[in-house]
Amino acid sequence: MGGSLALALRPHVAGLAAVETSPAGFALARSLDIVDVVHSDLAAGVAGADLVVLATPVRTILALLEQLPHARPGGCLVLDLGSTKQAVCRAMAALPAGFRAIGGHPMCGKESAGLAAATADLYQGQTFVLCPPQDQPDPAWAVLAEALVTQIGSRPVWLPPDSHDQLVALTSHLPYVAAALLMQQAAQAASGNGHVWPVSASGFRDTARLAGSDPAMLRDILLTNRAAVLARLQQYQTGLAQFIQLLDSADEAALYQWLAARQAEHDLYRQAKLEPPALPTTGEDDVYANYGSG
Amino acid sequence: MGGSLALALRPHVAGLAAVETSPAGFALARSLDIVDVVHSDLAAGVAGADLVVLATPVRTILALLEQLPHARPGGCLVLDLGSTKQAVCRAMAALPAGFRAIGGHPMCGKESAGLAAATADLYQGQTFVLCPPQDQPDPAWAVLAEALVTQIGSRPVWLPPDSHDQLVALTSHLPYVAAALLMQQAAQAASGNGHVWPVSASGFRDTARLAGSDPAMLRDILLTNRAAVLARLQQYQTGLAQFIQLLDSADEAALYQWLAARQAEHDLYRQAKLEPPALPTTGEDDVYANYGSG
Repeated sequence: MGGSLALALRPHVAGLAAVETSPAGFALARSLDIVDVVHSDLAAGVAGADLVVLATPVRTILALLEQLPHARPGGCLVLDLGSTKQAVCRAMAALPAGFRAIGGHPMCGKESAGLAAATADLYQGQTFVLCPPQDQPDPAWAVLAEALVTQIGSRPVWLPPDSHDQLVALTSHLPYVAAALLMQQAAQAASGNGHVWPVSASGFRDTARLAGSDPAMLRDILLTNRAAVLARLQQYQTGLAQFIQLLDSADEAALYQWLAARQAEHDLYRQAKLEPPALPTTGEDDVYANYGSG
Repeated sequence: MGGSLALALRPHVAGLAAVETSPAGFALARSLDIVDVVHSDLAAGVAGADLVVLATPVRTILALLEQLPHARPGGCLVLDLGSTKQAVCRAMAALPAGFRAIGGHPMCGKESAGLAAATADLYQGQTFVLCPPQDQPDPAWAVLAEALVTQIGSRPVWLPPDSHDQLVALTSHLPYVAAALLMQQAAQAASGNGHVWPVSASGFRDTARLAGSDPAMLRDILLTNRAAVLARLQQYQTGLAQFIQLLDSADEAALYQWLAARQAEHDLYRQAKLEPPALPTTGEDDVYANYGSG
């Protein structure tokens, strides 16, 4: 996502430097024409930067936020692209004066990450969540962050970090676990039965897709959003138990009603995604007019 | 799927007649140039037919198989496209002499069915399961059914009806329930929170896609494959409980191992779908050389 952001921002900024600490990442970043200069050292990479964007798994972002005051003693603007926001925003709030930070989460993840997959249009038409580390972010940086998000074609949505984490536990982390459990069960069966994959079709493919997600990214997500994900998993468990009971009863009418309700919900969801509704607002002149309590 | 099959078969057959009993389906079938003639009456539609293909939800297929001896007293070849096969094949085995029937299930469902969505290439590159209603299907019809399936670009796979139903409980019906439960939970949250859909992205969209499936089709599937689906749901329940325990433990190393195992399984699955492995065989000269015990 960092590579895609660089590609999307490049026409609009004076210069771009990347920091890649792994030798492979460093070589790849140099070979691709995505940024002006590639560094392997954090301090060298952020020297003189107006804005530092942290685009790594969440717990690496936390480590980088600890190193930043030494690497960039003068301070600068900071944005991250991490998948959970409470831990990141707490660390941002602890940055010394001179730093002005905002948490960010573009809702356009790819399960196959990496520089080689970078595309300038990844952010087009997507929601980009912005989280203030304190009650109010620095007003000038908030205006600039919204402009940056709009410039790359995304739709800024301001949310408190805890609201964000509750929401993505439902819309992103729960779907991952549902997909991974499906893959686990099917793979176990497939290891002893050569027909499992041939009779699996597009429904399986799409439902299980997220199982292919990067395990380091997911580990950091799940460990920094554990309580919210556990609550969602327990609710899913309840729903599953209720459905098992319904199917076991073989009550045709009740079963049809349940299935039709899910289809109706899916229709409403699709309509909502086709025509994004107006978001809750807190005041017209607010720099984050669509900031909500989640 | 019936409309798509008609489009795919049309260049290769002498003539095609459709039976549409609903006034809307009848009008639509007449307006689209998919078949030569459209009937609203079963007996009129199947009069003189060499082959009758039943392309409806499973329990309607069962009702049609009961009507067929009266509608087509001379008998004919019969194929169906139903999503479960045990009940259908039992009914096929009970057809009077003169009928030669084979159960079929093309693994290329669309959640949005209907004549208007018909495309000639729907079956290209897909697995098409064939199930003999008796221990051995009529040899001539078995050869012809394989030829038909190959002609429309699909890959025939012979399976006993019970093996088929066990497999699709895992690869199709379990994914549906997993998707529907996710949609139920998210829709409930979205009804009280305007941010749920804006922060949902492609991961949610794909994992929840099957929730949009036709409820009448799903009702018939779940009621005719209840025991196998319940067994898969209970296994899913066990996997979910184990994962909740793992996440609750916050054991980083064990969590990473679990996540990496799912990614590795997804890689193997993708490789298997890119290069379909040789299927288990029972004998080279067998008309259903790839018939397996599932």
